[in-house]
Amino acid sequence: MRKDGRTEEEIRPCTIECGCIRHAEGSAFIRVGDTHVLCVASVSDRVPKWLARSEQGWITAEYSMLPRSTAERTPRESTAGVSGRTQEIQRMIGRALRAVCDLHMLGTWSIVVDCDVIQADGGTRTAAITGAYVALAQAISWMIQHNLVRTWPLSAQVAAISAGLVQGDVLVDLTYEEDRSASVDLNLVLTHKGQVVEIQAAAEGNPFSVEQLNRLIGGASKGLKILFEIQRKALEGIVVRS
Amino acid sequence: MRKDGRTEEEIRPCTIECGCIRHAEGSAFIRVGDTHVLCVASVSDRVPKWLARSEQGWITAEYSMLPRSTAERTPRESTAGVSGRTQEIQRMIGRALRAVCDLHMLGTWSIVVDCDVIQADGGTRTAAITGAYVALAQAISWMIQHNLVRTWPLSAQVAAISAGLVQGDVLVDLTYEEDRSASVDLNLVLTHKGQVVEIQAAAEGNPFSVEQLNRLIGGASKGLKILFEIQRKALEGIVVRS
Amino acid sequence: MRKDGRTEEEIRPCTIECGCIRHAEGSAFIRVGDTHVLCVASVSDRVPKWLARSEQGWITAEYSMLPRSTAERTPRESTAGVSGRTQEIQRMIGRALRAVCDLHMLGTWSIVVDCDVIQADGGTRTAAITGAYVALAQAISWMIQHNLVRTWPLSAQVAAISAGLVQGDVLVDLTYEEDRSASVDLNLVLTHKGQVVEIQAAAEGNPFSVEQLNRLIGGASKGLKILFEIQRKALEGIVVRS
Amino acid sequence: MRKDGRTEEEIRPCTIECGCIRHAEGSAFIRVGDTHVLCVASVSDRVPKWLARSEQGWITAEYSMLPRSTAERTPRESTAGVSGRTQEIQRMIGRALRAVCDLHMLGTWSIVVDCDVIQADGGTRTAAITGAYVALAQAISWMIQHNLVRTWPLSAQVAAISAGLVQGDVLVDLTYEEDRSASVDLNLVLTHKGQVVEIQAAAEGNPFSVEQLNRLIGGASKGLKILFEIQRKALEGIVVRS
Amino acid sequence: MRKDGRTEEEIRPCTIECGCIRHAEGSAFIRVGDTHVLCVASVSDRVPKWLARSEQGWITAEYSMLPRSTAERTPRESTAGVSGRTQEIQRMIGRALRAVCDLHMLGTWSIVVDCDVIQADGGTRTAAITGAYVALAQAISWMIQHNLVRTWPLSAQVAAISAGLVQGDVLVDLTYEEDRSASVDLNLVLTHKGQVVEIQAAAEGNPFSVEQLNRLIGGASKGLKILFEIQRKALEGIVVRS
Amino acid sequence: MRKDGRTEEEIRPCTIECGCIRHAEGSAFIRVGDTHVLCVASVSDRVPKWLARSEQGWITAEYSMLPRSTAERTPRESTAGVSGRTQEIQRMIGRALRAVCDLHMLGTWSIVVDCDVIQADGGTRTAAITGAYVALAQAISWMIQHNLVRTWPLSAQVAAISAGLVQGDVLVDLTYEEDRSASVDLNLVLTHKGQVVEIQAAAEGNPFSVEQLNRLIGGASKGLKILFEIQRKALEGIVVRS
Repeated sequence: MRKDGRTEEEIRPCTIECGCIRHAEGSAFIRVGDTHVLCVASVSDRVPKWLARSEQGWITAEYSMLPRSTAERTPRESTAGVSGRTQEIQRMIGRALRAVCDLHMLGTWSIVVDCDVIQADGGTRTAAITGAYVALAQAISWMIQHNLVRTWPLSAQVAAISAGLVQGDVLVDLTYEEDRSASVDLNLVLTHKGQVVEIQAAAEGNPFSVEQLNRLIGGASKGLKILFEIQRKALEGIVVRS
Repeated sequence: MRKDGRTEEEIRPCTIECGCIRHAEGSAFIRVGDTHVLCVASVSDRVPKWLARSEQGWITAEYSMLPRSTAERTPRESTAGVSGRTQEIQRMIGRALRAVCDLHMLGTWSIVVDCDVIQADGGTRTAAITGAYVALAQAISWMIQHNLVRTWPLSAQVAAISAGLVQGDVLVDLTYEEDRSASVDLNLVLTHKGQVVEIQAAAEGNPFSVEQLNRLIGGASKGLKILFEIQRKALEGIVVRS
Repeated sequence: MRKDGRTEEEIRPCTIECGCIRHAEGSAFIRVGDTHVLCVASVSDRVPKWLARSEQGWITAEYSMLPRSTAERTPRESTAGVSGRTQEIQRMIGRALRAVCDLHMLGTWSIVVDCDVIQADGGTRTAAITGAYVALAQAISWMIQHNLVRTWPLSAQVAAISAGLVQGDVLVDLTYEEDRSASVDLNLVLTHKGQVVEIQAAAEGNPFSVEQLNRLIGGASKGLKILFEIQRKALEGIVVRS
Repeated sequence: MRKDGRTEEEIRPCTIECGCIRHAEGSAFIRVGDTHVLCVASVSDRVPKWLARSEQGWITAEYSMLPRSTAERTPRESTAGVSGRTQEIQRMIGRALRAVCDLHMLGTWSIVVDCDVIQADGGTRTAAITGAYVALAQAISWMIQHNLVRTWPLSAQVAAISAGLVQGDVLVDLTYEEDRSASVDLNLVLTHKGQVVEIQAAAEGNPFSVEQLNRLIGGASKGLKILFEIQRKALEGIVVRS
Repeated sequence: MRKDGRTEEEIRPCTIECGCIRHAEGSAFIRVGDTHVLCVASVSDRVPKWLARSEQGWITAEYSMLPRSTAERTPRESTAGVSGRTQEIQRMIGRALRAVCDLHMLGTWSIVVDCDVIQADGGTRTAAITGAYVALAQAISWMIQHNLVRTWPLSAQVAAISAGLVQGDVLVDLTYEEDRSASVDLNLVLTHKGQVVEIQAAAEGNPFSVEQLNRLIGGASKGLKILFEIQRKALEGIVVRS
Repeated sequence: MRKDGRTEEEIRPCTIECGCIRHAEGSAFIRVGDTHVLCVASVSDRVPKWLARSEQGWITAEYSMLPRSTAERTPRESTAGVSGRTQEIQRMIGRALRAVCDLHMLGTWSIVVDCDVIQADGGTRTAAITGAYVALAQAISWMIQHNLVRTWPLSAQVAAISAGLVQGDVLVDLTYEEDRSASVDLNLVLTHKGQVVEIQAAAEGNPFSVEQLNRLIGGASKGLKILFEIQRKALEGIVVRS
């Protein structure tokens, strides 16, 4: 039994509220336990320079933590500079979204998904990916309704979860406290069809075996099935496909 | 009658939810119509360098808009640099809070109040001041409960509201659209006793008379009475005075 | 009687020397007591991007203090970063100048007025506005002589002055020392017709009443009448109207 | 057969020259095909602030590419800002080195390993890790000879290699051209005992299966065995253990 | 005959006004033709970190041009970043001043000399050096009067001038226009005893001979004699030696 | 006799390896004693903005030191900011190269020469100039072979060397240690025809006489003759003239 009463492979209570920001083409407020992330998708007719001559769109993400989302106040990055951690995370979110989208179908539109952490308790980057997918799907639905995109370009749902080895046990969906005591930290990004979009696992202290890696993947995969279901419910009645 | 059905001196529906951020010593989520600002107070044992040798505490504020709080997405200041507008606003919030607090009673503690605009529809700086007061009062209550402060240091409530001249009429609590068509823009910061903490009024286009200025002050003052009442309710059952 | 022998509403000796910088289209060196500001207007055929498609010109201001204009040397902003105070002031100067100019008459020209404080003794932002008007008027006269502008676009003179409450008394045109001991600090920007362009007043310590605000405005208005006269003399023989 | 004549699981010719920089405590120039990286370890008596009170040392890495290491010249990061990619890579190198070092045995010393890419043809981050281990081992040997460290703190060799799926085939140690056409890109960091230190795999385009992931791991592991052998030879006669 | 009526080796009219800034320990306003530079010396009890343990003081210089000192307005370096040219010049001024001062006699005091160009017409760096010496001498005199320094630490006067080859002729003290058409540009820093402190000469276009270099040095040396005389007059009645 | 056995006017062993970087149009690795600099020339079809309308090309240089090229590790400029020293050096290298090139013959092409110091022992800026010429000549040869340039645009070889006064003696090609004890430091840039491209000499401590300056120039000129010979050998069989 874990500190908050969960079993080893049980994920925290999760809710996703879609359409919460009035000005935006897509938005989702995701709560995974005490981790709360606001994901907002903005459609723009400007693609990055290096894509200018190609015939495809682009999806990118930005990630930020409000100063007091953490137990101690963290200085703003507008003052302190954008950290390596932030850049690593926003690149990861962007890759995950692009992996399930046919960018040629976006024409020359680009979408930015802003993921702002309102409150943090471990797993902010995975919650951001799971919420960002919902905001993205709403934005694309908006584009179809406004005839900016003709065909539904998303090939699958994408979501992410963490898992870790704590004293030899595989725990799924780590809180901040569990994450700190884990000897291995896995972040797994899957499609709802069970395909891998991205995997990152690093030893915090002692290296680990390939067999342990596969057990972590197994546990995380189970948790993700629940998240895909919650995504579907959040989008019900909102998404209009082509 | 105004576009949203209000009379000239009527303010928008306003709610303040106190204590919404789990990690923070004080927090308030204020909604004034479609303007939503999260105000979070953090207590710290570090005062600015230039105060190091004095025997007083300090209160400061930071202000930021989430990228898609606005109708068009605004680039993050971590990327674009902190704008003059942002700095002007956070200095104004800080001054307002310090004007009602006896900083010597704070000992050598300092408090930062982060005001993050989640959604914007005019009047974000005045909503931030009104919400920041509530977050500050909760944080000071927490300090008293934890024996960091002995005597209640706040001498009055402080809140702020906008008013403007639109085609010769005094309108109170402007939406973004009303603000754009106003020929004069007033921001008024008062204590609940009716004393002025700060006044800023600038002509957008044609200069105005001192008589018009006094009519604007009058209208704004009435609106503020309602905000002081809402602040009191939000703090009910939360604030513990010394 | 004040420390320097002035009565409560008396302003410091003021001189404005117009045309002091050889390369510039407009320039004015203003001395208000020991506060000396060099104001230089540059005409340019580039307007800000966001105005590119409109049919109007633009006026902007930059403000800076030489490192040793102050009693203690202040680090340069090229090293330390442009402070919030600087940005607040240069936005204020720009607003004041634009409020008396019909920007459509400027065609697609823009004017930058650089206000560099050579020596500071309180009231640098108000002296900058008063001097900047003179530099601007000379630059516009130059534009008319060179057929860049057809009709005189300035609707009024603009000038500014400070006032404050010191131990309950209204003092006009504060020195640095008086400013530090004032409990309220007013900056008032008027046209020579007595209309308000901008008003800023903030409590340093104790909040103040609306009645006190109106007494401050009254005192400052009297001082401004003298400054308008000095502006007119500085421009005599220099300005050529259309 | 691959373009350069290698079989699918064959790595490029690799050499490591240890001790090539005269001033440094440890250095290694690694060449993996046309990818050339200079790795230089510097010992310092300053640990990061947040470690100041602990009783342990620290190892960190910096990564940079010379402007013309690439086919097209890349602007320097001193001009363009440190990119997210650079920060991601240098964090990864640092983690890999720390995972095989008992930081408590370093006392309060810290080591920075600078990895500068002289010429790039794919796999610069993995070559940097493989070379950095050699520079680190030489630096630690130097510390032991100078009595700064008593016990050999490295628990294993660490090295890294890339692998990818190209048209369904597992290729090991990708060139830049192969990397661009791969649909999955794996970076694997192992100890010479076969334990995982870090694994990163991301879909470039189509998601992949867990089975494919395991085939990539298998291929990469074989290539790493050769690199561990080359590391050992490079350090022969140089490393003095406690 | 030159455009402004000067002979080849004749310098422009030069005046130096000492003590023009009220707050500063030393100040000099130097005018060389239409080149006007304000030089202000500030005494501080902080030396740079790397000197902290030594028993000597330090002298440094900062150089800046007001935006409209030039024919076209130049953006401020607080906005555009400090240019290489600015840094090169301020390092040169600092070296020149330190070369004639026994830094050990300064105790642990440091002096910053700010050189701000009010109006530019060629030779701003050399005028800055000539004026900075006067400001420095006044500041040191102030230090002696206030018992911060015991013995006069300056071993000689230092001044600088430019010279150039224009169509084969040696011209001394170049205006901006002459400088642009010169094929060689020399900046010479001498002491009043005729010793060289620094020499910089570079070909703009065609390389030049050592013989030509010596002719340039000869012409510049004559011009400097007049500047040393003007420095002495500016300091008359102001400098108090130990 | 000097510490490393050289006579006063003897330069250190010098080698230049041309064509060492595979991707680049020109490259040279120069070793002058323990000072090792990698010089790489990149051809680009973009000229600086201010040249856009002219009919000429441009040559520029960038200079950087690897962090551990020095005895103590120096922080990267991507972190610490580009120093004044770096900017001064890269401007000097650029001027030297442009002085021997007819920029109109380059058409609208520009060339950047990156000079990265791998190991430093005094004289890095002069070694950079000497090596940069070789990289530039190879790049221009490549341009001629690819028909980007028709006529050989270089009018002469250019190289540089240092010299200094150490206890009254003229020493040529100073090591870092010699440089620190020199009372005068000369950097001399000549063409192989003996013409001066640039000369910089500054007193470190005591000013010096014109006669001493001429002795330094004489010694340095002799050393440069050997460097011009080494440049020619490095380019043998590589340069193809038009």
